[in-house]
Amino acid sequence: MTADPLPTGSTIGILGGGQLGRMLCAAASRLGMRTHVLADGPDPPAGQLANRVSISCYNDLEILRRFAKSVDVATYEFENIPASTIDTVAGFCQVRPGRSALVASQDRLVEKSFLRDIGVDVAPFVGIENRSELLDAAKAIGFPAILKSRRLGYDGKGQARLRTVHDVERAMNAVGNKPAILEQHVAFDLEISVIGARAVRGSKVCYNPGENVHENGILRTTRVPARISNEIENRAVSISETIMDMLDYVGVIGVEFFVSGEELLVNEFAPRVHNSGHWTQNGCAIDQFEQHIRAICNWPLGDARRHADVTMVNIIGKEVTTVQELARKSDHAIHLYGKSEARPGRKMGHVNKISPTSGG
Amino acid sequence: MTADPLPTGSTIGILGGGQLGRMLCAAASRLGMRTHVLADGPDPPAGQLANRVSISCYNDLEILRRFAKSVDVATYEFENIPASTIDTVAGFCQVRPGRSALVASQDRLVEKSFLRDIGVDVAPFVGIENRSELLDAAKAIGFPAILKSRRLGYDGKGQARLRTVHDVERAMNAVGNKPAILEQHVAFDLEISVIGARAVRGSKVCYNPGENVHENGILRTTRVPARISNEIENRAVSISETIMDMLDYVGVIGVEFFVSGEELLVNEFAPRVHNSGHWTQNGCAIDQFEQHIRAICNWPLGDARRHADVTMVNIIGKEVTTVQELARKSDHAIHLYGKSEARPGRKMGHVNKISPTSGG
Repeated sequence: MTADPLPTGSTIGILGGGQLGRMLCAAASRLGMRTHVLADGPDPPAGQLANRVSISCYNDLEILRRFAKSVDVATYEFENIPASTIDTVAGFCQVRPGRSALVASQDRLVEKSFLRDIGVDVAPFVGIENRSELLDAAKAIGFPAILKSRRLGYDGKGQARLRTVHDVERAMNAVGNKPAILEQHVAFDLEISVIGARAVRGSKVCYNPGENVHENGILRTTRVPARISNEIENRAVSISETIMDMLDYVGVIGVEFFVSGEELLVNEFAPRVHNSGHWTQNGCAIDQFEQHIRAICNWPLGDARRHADVTMVNIIGKEVTTVQELARKSDHAIHLYGKSEARPGRKMGHVNKISPTSGG
Repeated sequence: MTADPLPTGSTIGILGGGQLGRMLCAAASRLGMRTHVLADGPDPPAGQLANRVSISCYNDLEILRRFAKSVDVATYEFENIPASTIDTVAGFCQVRPGRSALVASQDRLVEKSFLRDIGVDVAPFVGIENRSELLDAAKAIGFPAILKSRRLGYDGKGQARLRTVHDVERAMNAVGNKPAILEQHVAFDLEISVIGARAVRGSKVCYNPGENVHENGILRTTRVPARISNEIENRAVSISETIMDMLDYVGVIGVEFFVSGEELLVNEFAPRVHNSGHWTQNGCAIDQFEQHIRAICNWPLGDARRHADVTMVNIIGKEVTTVQELARKSDHAIHLYGKSEARPGRKMGHVNKISPTSGG
């Protein structure tokens, strides 16, 4: 099943119905592939571009089986899909990326331990189970430190900063008094991310790193080129390739880094197309979404070279009402997600601001 | 209804379910618009990316009415939609581009007469009804000449070349002994086309002209920049703008020209997105499909500047089996149409070969 590329006209199953799935559907269509989206809410953004949509929770075995039997390969567009869902689907078709990347990314302690074990630099961390372990860990790691819930972290939720021992109780409450991971605070100069792809046979491509700015824990902008040295860029790409190889990864991955001077620490990775890779839609011949489709279909990876400088800006919540102003500006490429409710903090779309390449 | 831009979440009706409609659906989704495709055959390529699909002939009044009532603006993706269909739909919603452009483009004699009347240079032509008129016309225009059916011309069908008076009978048979137009043969150096867009309020943008090569009456390649002088480029753009203004046009138009030295003749125009504009998908921030959606939704037109050199090559019939070879090449962006049957002469997709811009 891994031997031959999937022919055009094959069906790609996508677990998750959000904007990432939506843009995966658009990319799949360019390669003549069909799509079947399984989503857990009505009118999913991805469903609007899919050949077929199933609406269900991710635990309905019968629906998962039918979904899996209807597709030639399955993927997921967010990492909080239950591992048991992947296991059910994997009984009937290939799931790419596979289980190990998903499971590692779902638990910050597993993820950081994996990274450390393969020799990748990460901030010092300790897994903790309760308040007294947290107190010990905080003394060992030092202040300031960040307490993060191990599971279901998303857009900065479930995190608390510790400045002194007096913050211990508040921090434990912030993570719901659940198992968590305490990490040393990194006083980084900037955040970057590498969007990489790995094919079934192990070939890899990486896009130029993007420089990310977060606001309130949500990605605000990504700009390429990032303001980093060639040396840092090369190391970030090399680390991303190592992570993909060690996970025997197939598909697109997003790896986030902290840069402090010439020091480079991995923050986390997401086993999927990534918000910080949206700039590739207008900066490259083959964007991250098509790259992912190519990889999971066992097609050759595409050219990841960048032909333009891009600043991607997320359109969040009510900002979507300004989209016509954005549309008026030259070289602003707009990408909306077809969501009707503009709730605060909800990603409604993004705009890629393009300019001729300055190199980098 | 023309005053305000259509808000995101509006529904665009598309008459026709082919690849042009498909790529219009993808572009509409980027602007957060919904789509309803009306197509006359099963599993239309556009339907795979539409929010809603209706399958019907184009003459079912009840279905047309329901379609029109379900959308906020309607457009068409091929020019052989019956004018009566447009009239029915226009009773319930705006149709853009409007009737006049459609009607002019459906009849070569009307089209050429319109162009001549607005002062645009075209090859000498005469409308003919029968064999004896053809004989007279051929003597007046001279040989070689081309006889073309007035209606339903598509990809070179319904055409015959006349080299001598002895070709008259064969030529009349080739156009089905129906009313036709005889045109003087133009010994052109090259064919170019301009993809232009005009907004509701009359603002216009044009992309750089593409240089087209046809094979057996089917577009084979379009390359930008075209090998033409700045003077020819400016005149071609100016003529395209005149045509759009005189038609009070709204949407994207494709205008084809013959270039002979510094002489420039309009061959024909298509009141829709155009195969020779597919290069814009990988050469510009805003492609022709999004430009059309912007125009018909009364949004600001987008930037039409070109950031790369592109050669677009159509993938025709069985050539689609080579698509994985194409995918292997750097800077080849593939666009397939999701058609299952690779019939001879059928457009299955296209590839945009991209290289850094050389200017032009």
